[in-house]
Amino acid sequence: MPSQFRLKRTVEFAETDMAGIMHFSNFFRWMEACETGFYRSLKLPQISFVPGQVVGWPRVAATCDFRAPLRFGESATVQLLVKRVGTRSVTYVFRFLRDRQLVARGEITAVCVQPDGEGGMVAAPLPPKVRAKLQVAAPRLLRD
Amino acid sequence: MPSQFRLKRTVEFAETDMAGIMHFSNFFRWMEACETGFYRSLKLPQISFVPGQVVGWPRVAATCDFRAPLRFGESATVQLLVKRVGTRSVTYVFRFLRDRQLVARGEITAVCVQPDGEGGMVAAPLPPKVRAKLQVAAPRLLRD
Amino acid sequence: MPSQFRLKRTVEFAETDMAGIMHFSNFFRWMEACETGFYRSLKLPQISFVPGQVVGWPRVAATCDFRAPLRFGESATVQLLVKRVGTRSVTYVFRFLRDRQLVARGEITAVCVQPDGEGGMVAAPLPPKVRAKLQVAAPRLLRD
Amino acid sequence: MPSQFRLKRTVEFAETDMAGIMHFSNFFRWMEACETGFYRSLKLPQISFVPGQVVGWPRVAATCDFRAPLRFGESATVQLLVKRVGTRSVTYVFRFLRDRQLVARGEITAVCVQPDGEGGMVAAPLPPKVRAKLQVAAPRLLRD
Repeated sequence: MPSQFRLKRTVEFAETDMAGIMHFSNFFRWMEACETGFYRSLKLPQISFVPGQVVGWPRVAATCDFRAPLRFGESATVQLLVKRVGTRSVTYVFRFLRDRQLVARGEITAVCVQPDGEGGMVAAPLPPKVRAKLQVAAPRLLRD
Repeated sequence: MPSQFRLKRTVEFAETDMAGIMHFSNFFRWMEACETGFYRSLKLPQISFVPGQVVGWPRVAATCDFRAPLRFGESATVQLLVKRVGTRSVTYVFRFLRDRQLVARGEITAVCVQPDGEGGMVAAPLPPKVRAKLQVAAPRLLRD
Repeated sequence: MPSQFRLKRTVEFAETDMAGIMHFSNFFRWMEACETGFYRSLKLPQISFVPGQVVGWPRVAATCDFRAPLRFGESATVQLLVKRVGTRSVTYVFRFLRDRQLVARGEITAVCVQPDGEGGMVAAPLPPKVRAKLQVAAPRLLRD
Repeated sequence: MPSQFRLKRTVEFAETDMAGIMHFSNFFRWMEACETGFYRSLKLPQISFVPGQVVGWPRVAATCDFRAPLRFGESATVQLLVKRVGTRSVTYVFRFLRDRQLVARGEITAVCVQPDGEGGMVAAPLPPKVRAKLQVAAPRLLRD
């Protein structure tokens, strides 16, 4: 299990807008890509269609503060920190670092959902195995 | 049933890139949005998870020729023409008109798929009702 | 000048994800599209490359709370409210309504930037004309 | 100079659609990302705002044939081949390989543009240095 999770990534042409910088909506996509890598590092599925399993982690809140623009070809590291493991949800903090400059800081709260038996989804307590992995990850991550 | 299908649309900020024009990948998204409107006008589902029905129309080919750029705030009309109704597929032509200028011309071939009974999808003949609607639409559309 | 600004919009296929709902990053794109319509209604440019003018409104913060998913083909109205007109920035609140249900609520704070004379951008006070239009719009909008 | 250019990449959640596969428009984004890496490997700028230089490579044509879907978390390698170096344009072929299976094959023709002196862009002959690098790359690539 990693003591933290980092994703390095480079701004693509299609991610820029006519102002010449990465479009702000893509910062949220980078956070999610980092979250995906984190789940993978914990060997937890991010989405599943297997009966009885967590089916996914829909977002209930997402925020981002933008300090500096990212331009085409620039690389940044997205750093994931587990901020809070709730009964049915988990909150992540993401820091975007270009060299040592903090260019953005975001948060995503995702809720654990399971099938409601009628074709829909319903919020559900984190399965113990998932909770355990996230709780172990959390303090290590927050020490950073 | 329309004798043709047209969708008018305006370039959004998020659709531009740092060259100051609509990113070329978005022309394909506009074609698909036009196709969605066309299916809706025929009262045909574009995707369905109902057992026994067509489940969707995955693309087997997509092309676009770009004649002129579209810029933020500019509007264009996407015109859909049914080019060919095959046994298991349908081919659409899309023309992008800004005023009377042809700014782009594309094609999409989509194949009709149904559940294969093992959790996957398999190409299937167009259901008679779907075929009938597309065939009636086709000659009218091509006369334009 | 409108007493408020609303944008009605329908979820497109390309905006969905494998969970079957609109991807959360697209809520931010819908907010921006609504903002674009608002600027247009006030006859204010959202971005300009004319020397001496405001060059744009980069985002310094964006948030969204998600209450219910939006699915392919569903329509929702995005309602823009001017929350605060600052010296160099403006904050908008966006409410996403499907019929009368609030499905999401977001905020965007954008800062007014002008050329810094060295090829970059620098935050600048809102030009009086821009400020006047936003301030007149604000109270009317907030009364809703 | 590489005898060919390859980019390995993994399907992200935001790249999927409600059919559970990568949305077809994203194949075009992957091609462009591969093209970016190729330019970088040749130490050629893909876009420039420096007076007198090539300003960019707008697309005049793009096509893709889709043989098999790519799903969330699956990796594929995009292989770039220089197909033709024209007077004012270059055509690339892209092959998408998942393990050894060809899942898609695309082409992009991009035209070299320079400033027209009136704020616009005009197609221009490839600068000798650019032509030389692409021509040397081409035969090596096509031998693969």
